[in-house]
Amino acid sequence: MNSNLKPQLFVVKIGGNVIDNPDVLKKFLQDLSSVNQKIILIHGGGKIATQIGERLGLEAKMHEGKRITDLPMLEVVTMVYGGLINKNIVAQLNSLNIKALGLTGADGNAILAKKRPVKDIDYGFVGDIEKVNADFLQTLLVANILPVIAPITHDGTGQLLNTNADTIANEVAVAMAEYFEVSLIYCFELMGVMKDVNDKDSLIPQITPQIYIELKKSGAISKGMIPKLDNSLKAINKGVKQVYICHASQIESIGTTKMQGTKIVDRY
Amino acid sequence: MNSNLKPQLFVVKIGGNVIDNPDVLKKFLQDLSSVNQKIILIHGGGKIATQIGERLGLEAKMHEGKRITDLPMLEVVTMVYGGLINKNIVAQLNSLNIKALGLTGADGNAILAKKRPVKDIDYGFVGDIEKVNADFLQTLLVANILPVIAPITHDGTGQLLNTNADTIANEVAVAMAEYFEVSLIYCFELMGVMKDVNDKDSLIPQITPQIYIELKKSGAISKGMIPKLDNSLKAINKGVKQVYICHASQIESIGTTKMQGTKIVDRY
Repeated sequence: MNSNLKPQLFVVKIGGNVIDNPDVLKKFLQDLSSVNQKIILIHGGGKIATQIGERLGLEAKMHEGKRITDLPMLEVVTMVYGGLINKNIVAQLNSLNIKALGLTGADGNAILAKKRPVKDIDYGFVGDIEKVNADFLQTLLVANILPVIAPITHDGTGQLLNTNADTIANEVAVAMAEYFEVSLIYCFELMGVMKDVNDKDSLIPQITPQIYIELKKSGAISKGMIPKLDNSLKAINKGVKQVYICHASQIESIGTTKMQGTKIVDRY
Repeated sequence: MNSNLKPQLFVVKIGGNVIDNPDVLKKFLQDLSSVNQKIILIHGGGKIATQIGERLGLEAKMHEGKRITDLPMLEVVTMVYGGLINKNIVAQLNSLNIKALGLTGADGNAILAKKRPVKDIDYGFVGDIEKVNADFLQTLLVANILPVIAPITHDGTGQLLNTNADTIANEVAVAMAEYFEVSLIYCFELMGVMKDVNDKDSLIPQITPQIYIELKKSGAISKGMIPKLDNSLKAINKGVKQVYICHASQIESIGTTKMQGTKIVDRY
């Protein structure tokens, strides 16, 4: 199919900085509801799971910034991501006349994953994505439903798995490129990829593979940004039209020329 | 529409006795997956919410057997019913090749409720159902999706509400009678309505409004069963074809003549 004939879809990911602040989340969802576009929303977990885990006497176990998910912690993230956070977002969107539907990867078999094999580190019940059920998500979008995806997947044998929300956004965007001209939008607390995080005039407006190589070489981008950019370029290689890394406030401008942030594209 | 032309739908409710025992739940879901019928499953909460609440330092507040839901307890039931229990059921059903989708009343605006007005008792964030969105549930059923509904609703302004699962089953059954010939199935730990709970041969196989009046008069049915039977008769008055009160093991026989339990019908 000629990509120009495909309708547009925006796969939007929000992280902890939006979720942890009820006022910021409310404003974000209001802005989102004003956008007249097909959208899939993916949310991260924020600090609430760690807090609830602590109150239940569980200690957050991390390895190089990644959560290790033992069975009690899997129950906590299933409750917090799939229940508390997801249903509050869905209820707010429905109050804004958006027919939102909350999902984990288990619902409608939306996202099938495989428990990460144990090598040096046992990450526990963490899932690496095997397949996104694009047909199912498409069925929902056709029915004018806005899917709201929590970062939980399943392995097809009844086992739920904890899965990184950035990765879900990325894989969903790639899978939906079959039906849509997909823009993947990572919303976070900065304006975009900055040359200097302390200088708000240092936003890098556009990154191509060539610019990315130069930026990495010069050390101009922070270590934390590298996995996001690696994933973004992979998504573009697999058919996603463009990736934006931007501030959550930009959500009301998606699909317009007003959109500010860092745009990642295949070429100029 | 002539009711004989409508397809069949089974609205099935399972309660705490099934949910609290992983082996019983697993067997129930296996049996359910072997049934080749359109089904909507509604689950209660069981003891897990109270246990998690206690571990979080919350005290379960009850009035005449009904939970009083303050804001911290609403968060717990949203997590436990909408997250932990719902997603585990959904993951298990999908592993049995049933395309299950978990819902609260907020998802797709499936069930709109109103916070119960404060009279003598303030039940807190408890919702009395105003409207079941039958069109939305019908859209899912047409797509061969089995909706799995957690006992949480919303009020349309972004507020989630705790709602009795029996009541949800009842209202969903009534609303779906527009599209289907609906059988409402309450699964619980007994064989059905018993004249004497200690005598397993005392099952009452069929109850009509006339029989119900006689049974109430004679004191032959337990106090706990009266609201369930009152609701069942109301459902039948509002277009539901039949209500079964039966043991969870009967699920594999729904739609067949093998079905055992108490059948509540309008007339012989």
